[in-house]
Amino acid sequence: MIRYTLAQVLRIEGAFMLLPCIVALIYHEHVGIIYLFIALALMLVGTIGSLFKPKDTVIYLKEGCVATSLSWIVMSLGGCLPFFISGEIPSFTDALFETISGFTTTGASILSEVEPLSHTALFWRSFTHWLGGMGVLVFLLAVIPMSGGSNINLMRAESPGPSVGKLVPKIKHTARILYLIYLIMTVLEMVLLMFGGMTLFEASTLSFGTAGTGGFGIKNDSFASYTTYVQWVAAVFMVLFGVNFNAYYYVLLREFKKVFGFEEVRHYLILIGTATVIIFLNVMRMYNTVGEALTHSFFQVASLVSSTGFGSTDFDTWPTLSKLTLILLMTVGACAGSTGGGVKVSRFMVLLKSIRKEFASYIHPKVVRKITIDGRPVEHDVVRSINVYLITFFTVLMGSMFLLALDGHDLVTTFTAVLATLNNIGPGLSLVGPTCNYGFFSNFSKYVLMLDMLAGRLELFPILILFHPKLYKGIAAKSRRV
Amino acid sequence: MIRYTLAQVLRIEGAFMLLPCIVALIYHEHVGIIYLFIALALMLVGTIGSLFKPKDTVIYLKEGCVATSLSWIVMSLGGCLPFFISGEIPSFTDALFETISGFTTTGASILSEVEPLSHTALFWRSFTHWLGGMGVLVFLLAVIPMSGGSNINLMRAESPGPSVGKLVPKIKHTARILYLIYLIMTVLEMVLLMFGGMTLFEASTLSFGTAGTGGFGIKNDSFASYTTYVQWVAAVFMVLFGVNFNAYYYVLLREFKKVFGFEEVRHYLILIGTATVIIFLNVMRMYNTVGEALTHSFFQVASLVSSTGFGSTDFDTWPTLSKLTLILLMTVGACAGSTGGGVKVSRFMVLLKSIRKEFASYIHPKVVRKITIDGRPVEHDVVRSINVYLITFFTVLMGSMFLLALDGHDLVTTFTAVLATLNNIGPGLSLVGPTCNYGFFSNFSKYVLMLDMLAGRLELFPILILFHPKLYKGIAAKSRRV
Repeated sequence: MIRYTLAQVLRIEGAFMLLPCIVALIYHEHVGIIYLFIALALMLVGTIGSLFKPKDTVIYLKEGCVATSLSWIVMSLGGCLPFFISGEIPSFTDALFETISGFTTTGASILSEVEPLSHTALFWRSFTHWLGGMGVLVFLLAVIPMSGGSNINLMRAESPGPSVGKLVPKIKHTARILYLIYLIMTVLEMVLLMFGGMTLFEASTLSFGTAGTGGFGIKNDSFASYTTYVQWVAAVFMVLFGVNFNAYYYVLLREFKKVFGFEEVRHYLILIGTATVIIFLNVMRMYNTVGEALTHSFFQVASLVSSTGFGSTDFDTWPTLSKLTLILLMTVGACAGSTGGGVKVSRFMVLLKSIRKEFASYIHPKVVRKITIDGRPVEHDVVRSINVYLITFFTVLMGSMFLLALDGHDLVTTFTAVLATLNNIGPGLSLVGPTCNYGFFSNFSKYVLMLDMLAGRLELFPILILFHPKLYKGIAAKSRRV
Repeated sequence: MIRYTLAQVLRIEGAFMLLPCIVALIYHEHVGIIYLFIALALMLVGTIGSLFKPKDTVIYLKEGCVATSLSWIVMSLGGCLPFFISGEIPSFTDALFETISGFTTTGASILSEVEPLSHTALFWRSFTHWLGGMGVLVFLLAVIPMSGGSNINLMRAESPGPSVGKLVPKIKHTARILYLIYLIMTVLEMVLLMFGGMTLFEASTLSFGTAGTGGFGIKNDSFASYTTYVQWVAAVFMVLFGVNFNAYYYVLLREFKKVFGFEEVRHYLILIGTATVIIFLNVMRMYNTVGEALTHSFFQVASLVSSTGFGSTDFDTWPTLSKLTLILLMTVGACAGSTGGGVKVSRFMVLLKSIRKEFASYIHPKVVRKITIDGRPVEHDVVRSINVYLITFFTVLMGSMFLLALDGHDLVTTFTAVLATLNNIGPGLSLVGPTCNYGFFSNFSKYVLMLDMLAGRLELFPILILFHPKLYKGIAAKSRRV
């Protein structure tokens, strides 16, 4: 079953790789031939691999996790081939880093300059964001008939957030609706960007980067040299792509009351507003006009809270209070059920509510309280799993920092590099600030960060479980039995 | 009842303030007269306040928390008077900071030089550590007859760790046994230090600083200029005072099997060993001899994990890996039931075990597991409260960092200053490194850090509850009813 899923993933990836070939045709770039061959090869391998459909198509939680993790790894290995074979990124480690950074919508780059890349490579690089944003497996579920109700385990492993809600009873339809919303919003942004005078190529790559909350740009200075109009369009869409997609579903259904009823969305917007005001007041004197200060404040808040990572200015030069605010935003992240990364607003809401509950129990020891979100009580099991998630998050963060510290860079670099990859943001502070890149790390550190990106995108457990010794014991025992 | 407790605390503090008067007599220092007058004044106020014993001597959890918090604040206000009135610390804020830092066993100083202080002041400064280490209220419980079994709520609010175990059925006897162990170990260290050629004054002040895991020294360079023998004695005792005191109780009872059965103590020692090895390998080349490198590695590990904060070398110059290890030690802290600060080893054990449990549930979904410590299952309620504790800890940490960031110092300074005060350690990194002090912060930041020290020493909730608006509503409602 896992083999079948992997093969399907390769087939789809191959199909999508035909898109950059079209770009190559338009811009008359010879590199397109390499993309074409790799695309055909991936489709061939995928088709052969999925010839024999397994009888047992039920996916349990464990298999779902393993299938998802392996899919992402295989997909990244396949996706990095064009960069590596074309020689545009000569080191295999770097090519893989760039691809994983793309698919996981991190946007951390090892390239010091992106402008020398061919249009074809830039398009594929940005397109990985779009594909990774909503999830390849969700796409798989949307287009390929799979039997059994257990596919939710695949979707659960790939979708961000503490609990996956099915919008409609059939998971296939849920996946289709999500991709439809995703597509509509991406096209909307493209149109608005083209109103700002962009070419189709510019507008599409940047929209892919925004939609997946990725952060790969096509200029060396990211968003710094674009017009204020473009910056605001991108900033607003970064915020929008960080909103729980369920809210848009209700917009489609014209049930606007339900949209504003989302407690998570409300808190997310309050967070963005508060952070923008704090940073605006803090950096106001650094810019010539109030408008400029406001644009940069809002743009960076939107970029980091949604885990996109575009930069309109070098925020590494901002004062400590602003940096601290950005670090907080980077940790909290976007809404569950969006394309954004981070720990997610809803998780923090539950955590903060559990503190409030604790205090209440000190004041009135005998009253029993339940934590509620949107007026509904949160099940005890969800609270527990959120707690475990946060502890695991900090453990992985600390562990990765230790491994990265072997490189001997300063504390802020080490900390923000891990935070920015684990939460799929992209730029951090100090040596990995918005004007810098990840190229200087040792290969070992790069692999650590790659795993962090994957762990962050798949919400920790699916990746971490690959390291659990008992998993292999279980598989070994099973194959012995067979 | 709260008034009665506060009065008793002042009386005891006054009595203890007679000790520095003896030091003043020996060294012929006139400043002793000020200490004598203040001691008498405190005892007088305390005696008047405790003249009328309240009828209702039952202490509930809420009242216990409030009584404890207010006791510590009143005690600090009383304790800072000699510094301020004698003019040795001219600013009231600074004198209060130094005293709170003493009582909470933090050891963070606003003084750039301690050697100009009188012997009397140095003695009182170090003695606040000793008094604060085991807790003034625990002392109160040991010597003063209080009726009712509810006094455990006072002890619970003051004692570190997730759960307070009564060694013997009567709380009074438990408190006495704890103070006896504390006294014996302090005297033992004094004797060993005097073998190293120290005077009684030196040996006693440094032993107070170690016993309370405080960290105030009597030299400007803390422990750097002492002999290797003295450094090792102090380091070993720092480790010992970070061990759960229940273990020593079993040593007294000669039940050695039980001592080694403590899972927390075992993990604490493993943590110290691992950290020492990592740092030793990392800093080896920075020192002339292997012995010197080992001494400094072990000394700093012992000093920071036990939250003492003595410095034998400037660890701010160590490489990132070592600094990161120290930050981890500072966060984890010592064992529950010791005089050390931090989040406590046992809390982290439970947290890490809950991650393991989560993974196990992925691999074998149907097996129900319980987290165990020392072979006994940990109640679900304890796990929950530990989770809430950790979340609250990080919330307070982040909140304080934001307030401190208004001062505009760098990120590492802001972060480690809050961490070092909240976990009652003392020195941090960068501007608050071991060779620096806290004098440069604004008064506002100093008050924030004072609250952090108190919150850290009383394990967050008793102090935080003072800020809960409903507490005052409750009191207002009650007084209206009366």
